[in-house]
Amino acid sequence: MSLPSLQQQFQVSFSYPVHFTEGLFEVSNPLLRDVLAQDGGRAPRKVFFALDSGVAEQHPHLTSQIVRYVEAHADVLQLSGPVALIPGGEQCKNQPALVQQLLEAVDAHHIDRHSYLAAIGGGAVLDMVGYAASVAHRGVRHLRIPTTVLSQNDSGIGVKNSVNAFGKKNFLGNFAPPYAVFNDFAFLRTLEDRDWRGGIAEALKVSLIKDAAFFRFMQAHAAALAARELPLMQQLIHRCAELHLEHIAGGDAFEQGSSRPLDFGHWSAHKLEQLSHYRIRHGEAVAIGIALDSVYSHLQGRLTVAELAEIIAVLETLGFELYAPEMVEHLTDAGHPQSLLHGLQEFREHLGGQLTIMLLDGIGTGVEVHEIDDKLMVEAVHQLQRYSRGVRPSAPL
Amino acid sequence: MSLPSLQQQFQVSFSYPVHFTEGLFEVSNPLLRDVLAQDGGRAPRKVFFALDSGVAEQHPHLTSQIVRYVEAHADVLQLSGPVALIPGGEQCKNQPALVQQLLEAVDAHHIDRHSYLAAIGGGAVLDMVGYAASVAHRGVRHLRIPTTVLSQNDSGIGVKNSVNAFGKKNFLGNFAPPYAVFNDFAFLRTLEDRDWRGGIAEALKVSLIKDAAFFRFMQAHAAALAARELPLMQQLIHRCAELHLEHIAGGDAFEQGSSRPLDFGHWSAHKLEQLSHYRIRHGEAVAIGIALDSVYSHLQGRLTVAELAEIIAVLETLGFELYAPEMVEHLTDAGHPQSLLHGLQEFREHLGGQLTIMLLDGIGTGVEVHEIDDKLMVEAVHQLQRYSRGVRPSAPL
Repeated sequence: MSLPSLQQQFQVSFSYPVHFTEGLFEVSNPLLRDVLAQDGGRAPRKVFFALDSGVAEQHPHLTSQIVRYVEAHADVLQLSGPVALIPGGEQCKNQPALVQQLLEAVDAHHIDRHSYLAAIGGGAVLDMVGYAASVAHRGVRHLRIPTTVLSQNDSGIGVKNSVNAFGKKNFLGNFAPPYAVFNDFAFLRTLEDRDWRGGIAEALKVSLIKDAAFFRFMQAHAAALAARELPLMQQLIHRCAELHLEHIAGGDAFEQGSSRPLDFGHWSAHKLEQLSHYRIRHGEAVAIGIALDSVYSHLQGRLTVAELAEIIAVLETLGFELYAPEMVEHLTDAGHPQSLLHGLQEFREHLGGQLTIMLLDGIGTGVEVHEIDDKLMVEAVHQLQRYSRGVRPSAPL
Repeated sequence: MSLPSLQQQFQVSFSYPVHFTEGLFEVSNPLLRDVLAQDGGRAPRKVFFALDSGVAEQHPHLTSQIVRYVEAHADVLQLSGPVALIPGGEQCKNQPALVQQLLEAVDAHHIDRHSYLAAIGGGAVLDMVGYAASVAHRGVRHLRIPTTVLSQNDSGIGVKNSVNAFGKKNFLGNFAPPYAVFNDFAFLRTLEDRDWRGGIAEALKVSLIKDAAFFRFMQAHAAALAARELPLMQQLIHRCAELHLEHIAGGDAFEQGSSRPLDFGHWSAHKLEQLSHYRIRHGEAVAIGIALDSVYSHLQGRLTVAELAEIIAVLETLGFELYAPEMVEHLTDAGHPQSLLHGLQEFREHLGGQLTIMLLDGIGTGVEVHEIDDKLMVEAVHQLQRYSRGVRPSAPL
């Protein structure tokens, strides 16, 4: 008997808001309460909070503030167990035990698909908690409350969750949109300079490949941004978040096809984080990655020396390093797992299929290429090394 | 500064074929080769095979057949490492080490998002391998080759992946459609009677709530189905698969809202599997669950005694048990974790929100209710107990 094939075909709609506020857990701020009150459920909603330990250190009253907030809005909200502290930073994504602890909490506190697992913290904690939320009961509702520039304008507002495994960044993960995102600018005031600055790298990245006007905004205000002028940073975060959301919605949100994430500068950034054992933080690594692929774009004749000099100047005014010593170890041996160039292969494998690297055809215009000339990339690394010693971009000798 | 909220909104399209064939790995069968050749990639595609040990025992030449098939189609296919044997049956979903082993294989053999992780086996192996495939690199392509009636007509063709945790079925999982499904009827010939029969329970389930004509088909052929007439089984699987695919596509495929999976008879089935330490297999448990909720529907006046008798008769002709001794232990103590009635609470928690149980308003018509009368359910259990002693459905005394 021959039976016809069946073709399954369907669409799934996803939507979530990204809110901007200051003082999310002040009892008088109705935002969180209102968003959950509109979920169509019956009160009170169970919420389990996972809090980045780094944030808790900077905000020692936050846990009691959360408890007070929930108590004050007991008609809508209910705590599911005590606020859990999660060790912050990329290292939390290397600890399977933390995911397991969150899953145990989901089990112990009977958090179901209509309950909420809220994460407050930097991108790493959001990634890790989001991963646990996405696989528990095939997905409990995930609230993201990003506390860093990087997570507020990029990683925290997207659809990806992940943890590291086998020494590889984001080896495990999936696509699972959050229920809602709350960007609370109050958290930015207490950031270390490194983390304040780090998040700007993702804004630079997206401006360089998509929006020259946004690059000019950052160029004009680079010194003020470095001096931590909060209103400028708020504008930067809002615009950067908007560009990232548009990219996700306009393309192939779950990266099923050949559509790419906004990953300019990222192949080397991922590798540098790993090579430096995460001494170099993600935003810092992205800044170096941007510098590297800008130099490479210039060496390929895609970017003028003036444009390259502008990019390098903005990075430096913001206070970024342009180079790290790990970049030259085993550099010319692309097959060596400790070589920066090995990152190209890992990058290809992680996304699958053909190698695709974003370069610049001028400021504001990204272009995808499928081949990288190792020798030219080595030359680009050496050029960055010279910049780090004070040499400035100039026409080739 | 007050900045407007951003609303993210997008749709993701999913599609995959469900093919029907016999002898998928016969070198002369072009199906598998052709499907992968059309993936838009460049040859050869890496495929890693995970094979249910139970299937391997019944088909001792399968591994070498797979190797020969891949070699014969080397322009399109390439093996990524040796065929991995996975201990079959529900127990494989209780072993986190198996997921870990698959992830290690993904890492070791450089299986990327454009490579394939193929699972050959019963529903449990497909669920487990599918889960690993869905989280590795945020999703490598998953080929499902279901070998049982149950997986060919239900679990293997849908969008769910899962493993068990904390003693709870499917506690971990997600929604991730397969790349393609291949139903190979040749595997059905070697099934144990229990597994041949077990899969019919899901067909009965979907017919009772959706399609009276399909129920009449099974009623007319119950004896022939029990006698293992393969062409009838092929028709049953095709129609059942079609109904399941329609339900997924027509509703809320990722169960984000209040839309429900086709889970008639399943709240008690899940609990019975657990209470019997998986001695009772899923299809067998579903048959009991169908009987139980049919009796309950009758006791509520939704189903006539004649309709109930027809359902019970079909289940018996097919060879199903209607009752298991685990059903009466701690029965009246719904708070006891070993009580069948505790399954109602677990079922609610797993899906979240309000309790929703499917009952029957006549054959072919499901109806959702949000409350279960414990006393009436206890009475339904006792009635099944009496049926198992030879008493037949009749009007209440």
